[in-house]
Amino acid sequence: MFIETCIAPVNIALIKYWGKRDEELILPINDSLSMTLSTDEMCAKTTASACSTYKEHRMWLNGEEVPFEDNPRAMRCLKALQRLALAKGESLKFPLEWKLHIVSRNNFPTAAGLASSAAGYACLVYTLATLYGIQDEELTAIARQGSGSACRSLHGGFVRWHKGEASDGSDSIALPVVTSAHWPNMHVLILVVNDSRKKTSSTKGMQRAVETSDLIKYRAKQCVPQRIQAITEAIKQRDFETFANITMQDSNQFHAIALDTFPPCVYMNDVSHAIVSFVHAYNAAVGLTRVAYTFDAGPNACLYVLKEHVPSVLQAIHTSFPNDAAGSVEYVKGIPIDGTASPSSTPTTADAILNGNFTLPTNERNLLKYIIHTKVGLGPQRLTKTDSLLNPSTGLPY
Amino acid sequence: MFIETCIAPVNIALIKYWGKRDEELILPINDSLSMTLSTDEMCAKTTASACSTYKEHRMWLNGEEVPFEDNPRAMRCLKALQRLALAKGESLKFPLEWKLHIVSRNNFPTAAGLASSAAGYACLVYTLATLYGIQDEELTAIARQGSGSACRSLHGGFVRWHKGEASDGSDSIALPVVTSAHWPNMHVLILVVNDSRKKTSSTKGMQRAVETSDLIKYRAKQCVPQRIQAITEAIKQRDFETFANITMQDSNQFHAIALDTFPPCVYMNDVSHAIVSFVHAYNAAVGLTRVAYTFDAGPNACLYVLKEHVPSVLQAIHTSFPNDAAGSVEYVKGIPIDGTASPSSTPTTADAILNGNFTLPTNERNLLKYIIHTKVGLGPQRLTKTDSLLNPSTGLPY
Repeated sequence: MFIETCIAPVNIALIKYWGKRDEELILPINDSLSMTLSTDEMCAKTTASACSTYKEHRMWLNGEEVPFEDNPRAMRCLKALQRLALAKGESLKFPLEWKLHIVSRNNFPTAAGLASSAAGYACLVYTLATLYGIQDEELTAIARQGSGSACRSLHGGFVRWHKGEASDGSDSIALPVVTSAHWPNMHVLILVVNDSRKKTSSTKGMQRAVETSDLIKYRAKQCVPQRIQAITEAIKQRDFETFANITMQDSNQFHAIALDTFPPCVYMNDVSHAIVSFVHAYNAAVGLTRVAYTFDAGPNACLYVLKEHVPSVLQAIHTSFPNDAAGSVEYVKGIPIDGTASPSSTPTTADAILNGNFTLPTNERNLLKYIIHTKVGLGPQRLTKTDSLLNPSTGLPY
Repeated sequence: MFIETCIAPVNIALIKYWGKRDEELILPINDSLSMTLSTDEMCAKTTASACSTYKEHRMWLNGEEVPFEDNPRAMRCLKALQRLALAKGESLKFPLEWKLHIVSRNNFPTAAGLASSAAGYACLVYTLATLYGIQDEELTAIARQGSGSACRSLHGGFVRWHKGEASDGSDSIALPVVTSAHWPNMHVLILVVNDSRKKTSSTKGMQRAVETSDLIKYRAKQCVPQRIQAITEAIKQRDFETFANITMQDSNQFHAIALDTFPPCVYMNDVSHAIVSFVHAYNAAVGLTRVAYTFDAGPNACLYVLKEHVPSVLQAIHTSFPNDAAGSVEYVKGIPIDGTASPSSTPTTADAILNGNFTLPTNERNLLKYIIHTKVGLGPQRLTKTDSLLNPSTGLPY
């Protein structure tokens, strides 16, 4: 039996991917650019094993067995990896006919709408590649065929997914912009929002956008290329203000495109918009752009804040979004915050100004479910045998 | 003393006006097209009087005295009308130096965000023109300088505001497309939504959109001209399905532009989006496009429904948006509905299908404040002396 366990990170797009030019190969209509989040707080973890005695490919996801051979996206990734292993030729560790058992887990709630499929497919592809002994630049193009944005989770730091020009998708790959070490104090607060609406899936939403939105063509052709250039420069210069403004504008434009779709796709809710108002009011109060928001295809906010400002921003969040659980480790998860950010501590000047300027849409408490504090991080990593999710003596999940 | 009383209608844009190319003259970046609502349910009413003994221009709006000489938009309208009166020459009824007392009222809540300024300025200009004895095609260009969309309230039926090309705004005028008699069974349900958020004013919102949105340029140049052509044709053909789809798409695109503005402008709320979902679910359930929505710079929905479908649509609204006041005349105002639309009557097939397909975002009751049932209507009308809002013996409001 051969067995490998790896983890892969979540990535959050700053310049959004929305719209495919090829549904089958998952080729996008525009480049996108993301930041990879530290695996310390959130990651997908996968153990893949190959054994001569396995009868069929089997997969367990978050504790439940899920179809694998019937999952065309997963099978496409597997086939592509096997072709690559075969092409490398020399020394296959084991015959390609051997069946696989795969166990995968996300250490964050799938329901939170936090790009779990990106981390999941990146982890699947990376772990299988490790199992087959492949190290190749082509891996991002393979992960892309599982879930588009998965290709960006194969690198750490800031990552650009080039849309590519080739019709076979061979140049639609993700490449690093800068490593996480370039801007290590780039922190993130994920505000998980209570929401129960049924939303259009990303796949359907972007398909419908390409079919019905007039504005999406202009965005892909005119707006995105400029923004990719400008934010790449801002990241290289560690220019937070420019980085923040482009990030917020592109999040807004993505949701504008979703709204210009027919019937419209609405991913943000009133609480999301209250967070947007809060961020603009906070930045106005401190007279500097200290916080940026971005929203994916769901209501949760991802706030970018430099490490040194996290305590005061978090305190302002506690003031503006009062929560009965504030102060508990269950409410603010992830990287510990130093003491000044407890909800009971003295308000900062920004808080004081904010309190005068910013009125919540409702007086409701507990609009946020919880907050995750994390930061920029590394790409996928290979773990040791002790981290295995699969019992090698049974070939089944622990 | 000379005295005149007139009423003017509200109009609701189907193709939205958003963005000025000239702030001073109120010249838009694109044509817009609206439907005028019947004055039976909603109108602005203005009495204007001129008297040799008045010391200064005075104005009362909805029972309170408001500045007139300090209101540059009102004064610009007055000056333009006086120039026109002078140009006509022959027989001025009274010297232009005479001061005016003006009393104006909206018979609908200003706070409901129902385009009160459009009806108000249209009524002011029409009443003053009547007082000065002016009948002129230039009136719409004058009303435009009070509030852009006011120019469209000077005609009944369906009205197109041509953006014009001239830098002095002389060709930026509203012209009728068809009269209200062309499509008399075009009815409207205005769903007034509870909302307490502070919103960006239209003036500021569109200014900021022109400055910061990339998409607005494309909309004005590429999308709107096509839509104006297509919806004009649909109106002429009484093709409800095409009319409805373009109306909904343009409402969505307008809100997309507002969201693409930086900082973003958000006018719809969760209840607005629930209404959008309801309309799409309803149309899907009946297998035809029977209802169209449009939203202005606020959360209230304006639904277009042909007269014969009003009872069943209203019943579906009662089912999907349950309200403690449903059934009372206070809840559904305006044109009386025939008995089948009471909230207690037997559900229709569409209701039954809807109930299976459509889930409200919350289980809350009373998400709607009230509903106004109205229809397409005439332009401004001159009333008799008995309708005066001003006591001729005191020169003050009754």
